[in-house]
Amino acid sequence: MTNEFHSEIEKTMQFTKIGIALKDWPSLSESQRLEIFNSLSEEEASDFFDSLDSNYQADLFEQFDRDLKRRWANDLAYDDLADILQLLEPEQVEETLSLLAKHARIEVMALMAYAEDVAGGLMNSNYIRLRANMYVEEAIRYIRTQTLSNVETIYYTYVIDATQKLLGVVSLRELFGARDGQKVSDLMTSGDDLIAIPDNMDQEEIGRVFSRFEQVVLPVIDDEFRMKGIITIDDIIKAVEEETTEDMQKIAAVESLDAPYLEVGFFEMTKKRLGWLVILFIGQMLTATAMTHFEAAIAHTVALVTFIPLIISSGGNSGAQASTLVIRALALGEVKNSDSLRVFFRELGSGLFMGFILGIFGFMRIYFWPHANEAYGVNFAQISLIVGCSIICIVMWGTLVGSMLPFLLKKLRFDPATASTPFVATICDVTGIIIYFSIAHALL
Amino acid sequence: MTNEFHSEIEKTMQFTKIGIALKDWPSLSESQRLEIFNSLSEEEASDFFDSLDSNYQADLFEQFDRDLKRRWANDLAYDDLADILQLLEPEQVEETLSLLAKHARIEVMALMAYAEDVAGGLMNSNYIRLRANMYVEEAIRYIRTQTLSNVETIYYTYVIDATQKLLGVVSLRELFGARDGQKVSDLMTSGDDLIAIPDNMDQEEIGRVFSRFEQVVLPVIDDEFRMKGIITIDDIIKAVEEETTEDMQKIAAVESLDAPYLEVGFFEMTKKRLGWLVILFIGQMLTATAMTHFEAAIAHTVALVTFIPLIISSGGNSGAQASTLVIRALALGEVKNSDSLRVFFRELGSGLFMGFILGIFGFMRIYFWPHANEAYGVNFAQISLIVGCSIICIVMWGTLVGSMLPFLLKKLRFDPATASTPFVATICDVTGIIIYFSIAHALL
Repeated sequence: MTNEFHSEIEKTMQFTKIGIALKDWPSLSESQRLEIFNSLSEEEASDFFDSLDSNYQADLFEQFDRDLKRRWANDLAYDDLADILQLLEPEQVEETLSLLAKHARIEVMALMAYAEDVAGGLMNSNYIRLRANMYVEEAIRYIRTQTLSNVETIYYTYVIDATQKLLGVVSLRELFGARDGQKVSDLMTSGDDLIAIPDNMDQEEIGRVFSRFEQVVLPVIDDEFRMKGIITIDDIIKAVEEETTEDMQKIAAVESLDAPYLEVGFFEMTKKRLGWLVILFIGQMLTATAMTHFEAAIAHTVALVTFIPLIISSGGNSGAQASTLVIRALALGEVKNSDSLRVFFRELGSGLFMGFILGIFGFMRIYFWPHANEAYGVNFAQISLIVGCSIICIVMWGTLVGSMLPFLLKKLRFDPATASTPFVATICDVTGIIIYFSIAHALL
Repeated sequence: MTNEFHSEIEKTMQFTKIGIALKDWPSLSESQRLEIFNSLSEEEASDFFDSLDSNYQADLFEQFDRDLKRRWANDLAYDDLADILQLLEPEQVEETLSLLAKHARIEVMALMAYAEDVAGGLMNSNYIRLRANMYVEEAIRYIRTQTLSNVETIYYTYVIDATQKLLGVVSLRELFGARDGQKVSDLMTSGDDLIAIPDNMDQEEIGRVFSRFEQVVLPVIDDEFRMKGIITIDDIIKAVEEETTEDMQKIAAVESLDAPYLEVGFFEMTKKRLGWLVILFIGQMLTATAMTHFEAAIAHTVALVTFIPLIISSGGNSGAQASTLVIRALALGEVKNSDSLRVFFRELGSGLFMGFILGIFGFMRIYFWPHANEAYGVNFAQISLIVGCSIICIVMWGTLVGSMLPFLLKKLRFDPATASTPFVATICDVTGIIIYFSIAHALL
C-alpha cells in the first residue's frame, strides 16, 4: 500500500512534463536541454526554471538569445537574477544588465554587491511595508491589494518609519486576531522581541537564527537598522544544505565541489581532491622518515613492524570520531570556543578509557596468539606489552588531537572543518610511530 | 559597525531572561533548571519551553509534579507532547496519558503509534479544513474565526470531502486574489499538482520533497488519501538537521548520539564510539596477520616496511574522499542507485589519475632521496618502483571501494553512511598490504 503512494508522488512527477525533464536533466547535453525548455509552455517554463538549481539556471540562461534574455531578466525575481548573474562571465553579466529596466538594474546590482553567502546576497527586496499608525482594518485592506503583486509573502509585514528604519513585524494572523480600533503599532513585535538579520551575517549563522527561533521569514537590516529586504526559509535551507555539504566534503579532505556530484566536471572534481591528497601524502612521508630513524630497533625486533598499521590506525580512527563530533557540534552552535576546556577533559577521559579497552585487545592479540614465540620472536611478551601501552597512548593522543584541532583552527580564523579526518589521521600516523618506537626502545 | 549589530542580536538575547537561560541551559543541573523555569511568568515559560530541544523538554517535564504535568500535557500541541512522551519511561508515559482529556489522549496515542522519524511522527493534526463548494468569501470568513484557535497555520487550508479524503490545498493568498463568486474548488491546487506526503515516508525523503518543491507546509495522507495532519517546515528542518548529524557521525564510525554533543552523558558517548572502534580494531588485526604472512619478504628487504604507512594511508585517504562524496550525494538525492555504474567509471578514472600523480611523488621520494642506497639498501631503485606501482593500484582500489561501498550497503538495505571513513580505511589497509607485498614479491 505504502509503496504505491510512494510511487504516487513519483508517478505524479513522471507524468508532468516538468517532472520528466527534471529527473533526466543532469544527463542531457546543453542543446538537448535548450530544446526541451523551448518546448514548454510559458507557465510550465516559468515553474520549471524556478525549480532548477542556480547552476543549471545559469547554463540555460547563457544559451538564450538576446530577446529571450531580456524577457527572462525582467521577469525573474531580483534575487534569483542576481544569483544567476554571479555565475556568468563578466561580458554576459554586462549584456544582461543592459537589458534590464533602470530601476530593476539598480536593485539587482545592489544585491550583487553582497557576497552570495551573506544575508544581503540571499535576501529579496519585495515585501509589504506598513506604517505604525495604520489601523488594523486599513492594514488588512492594503495587504489584500498587494495579493497579486510580486511581494514574496503577504503573511508577514514590516513596519517602517519615514527613514526606512524597521520598527516592527506583524503577521496577517495577528492582524486578523486584533480587536476593533487597534493600530498596527499595538500588535507589532518590536524592541527586544524583534529578530532582524544584519545584512552581512553569514548564511550558516542565519540558519541557526532561523532554527533557534523557528521562523519562516526574517527581515534584513543594515547597520543603521534600515530595512533592506527579507530572507525566506527556503532560501536559507538551500544555503544551509550547501554549507553542510561543504563541511562534509572538507572533513573528507575534499575542496568544496559547489555543485551536485554528477554535475561537476571530471577534471574539476579530480583537481579538488588531488590538492589535499598530495598535501597529506607529503605529510605522510614523515612516517617513512620516522621509521628510518628507528631502523636499528626494526632490525633488532622485526616483529615490531607487524603491528604498525594496527597501532597507527587506532589513533587515526579515534581522532576521526573526535574531530567529526566537534566540527559538527561547532557548526550547530552546540559547542562554542569557550567550551574547549570542557571538551578537552571529556575527550581526555574518553580517550583514556577507549585506549585502555583497545590496549587490552591488542595485548591479548599477541600474548595469547597460538605459537606466539614462533610468530613474533622470543620476546613476544614484551612486544604485547609495548603494543598495549602504545595503543593506550595513541588513542588518547588521537582523541585529543582530533577534538582540539577544530578549536585551534577556529581560533586562527580558519574553517574548523579543515581538521579533516585524513588530516587528523596523518598527524596521528606520524606521531604514533614516534610514540610506538619510543616505548619499544624503553621496554626492550 | 557590523560587529555591533551582530552583538545587537546577542545583546537582545542576553537581556531577555529567556535568552540567558537558553544560553547556559546545558551547564545547569536539573534542579537549577527547574528553579529557573519556575521563576518564569506563564507566557515566558510557554515560549521558553517551546524553544527547548525535545530532550531538554522531556528532562524538565519529568520533574513536574502531577498538577503541573496535567496542566502542561493538556496545553502542549499534540505532536510536541507525543515527542516528549517518546523520550520518557513507560510508567511516566502511562501517568501522563491518564492526565489527558479523552479526545486528546486518543490523538496523542495515535501520533505516538508512528515512529518518530516518519511523516506520522512529525505531523500536527491541527489544521483548517474547508469544503470544496464553499464560496471564497465564506472560506475567508471561516478562516478568520480560526485565527485565535490552535491551528498550526491559517495561511494554508485543506479541502476535504465527507470521508476525510484530501481533495486540494488552497492558500490564504489565493483566496484573497480570487474574483467575486468563485468557489474554493475553482482555486484549489489539486490532482497532479497536489503534493501530499504518505504517512510512513521517512523524514530524510520528506525533507527532499520540501526542498525540491519549495514548500513551507505539506499535508500528510494515509494509504487511502485521507488527510491525517500537516507537517510544517520547522519540524522537517529539525529532522533533516538531525539526520545530517547522524550521517556525519556514522561516516566517522560513531553511533548516532541523538543529542547535542555536550548533553550526552560521558559513558553514553564513550559507549557509542567504542563499538565501532573495537570492530574496526579487530578488523585491522588482519593487517598484522597479513604482514606475518609476508615476513619472509620483510626479512629480506627490511626497507620495504618503511613505506607501509605511506602506502596504506593513500588508499584510506582517497577512499575517504570517495565514500563521503557518494554518501552525501545519495542523501541529497543527487545520485540514485541506478547511477552506480556511472559513478564507478568516474571514480575509476579519478583514482587512476590521482594514483598516478601520487605514485610519481612516491617514486621520487625514494629514488631521489640523498644517499638512498645507504638508507634503503642496494635495491632502492626497485623499491621506488614497487612503491610507485603499489600507490597507483591502492589509490585506484581505495577510490573504487570508497565509492561503491555506499551503493552496496544501500542495496542490502543498510544506511549507506555506514561506509564510514575508518571502515573504508580499514579495508584499504588490509588489502593494501596484500597488494604491496604481492607487487614486491613480483618485482624482487
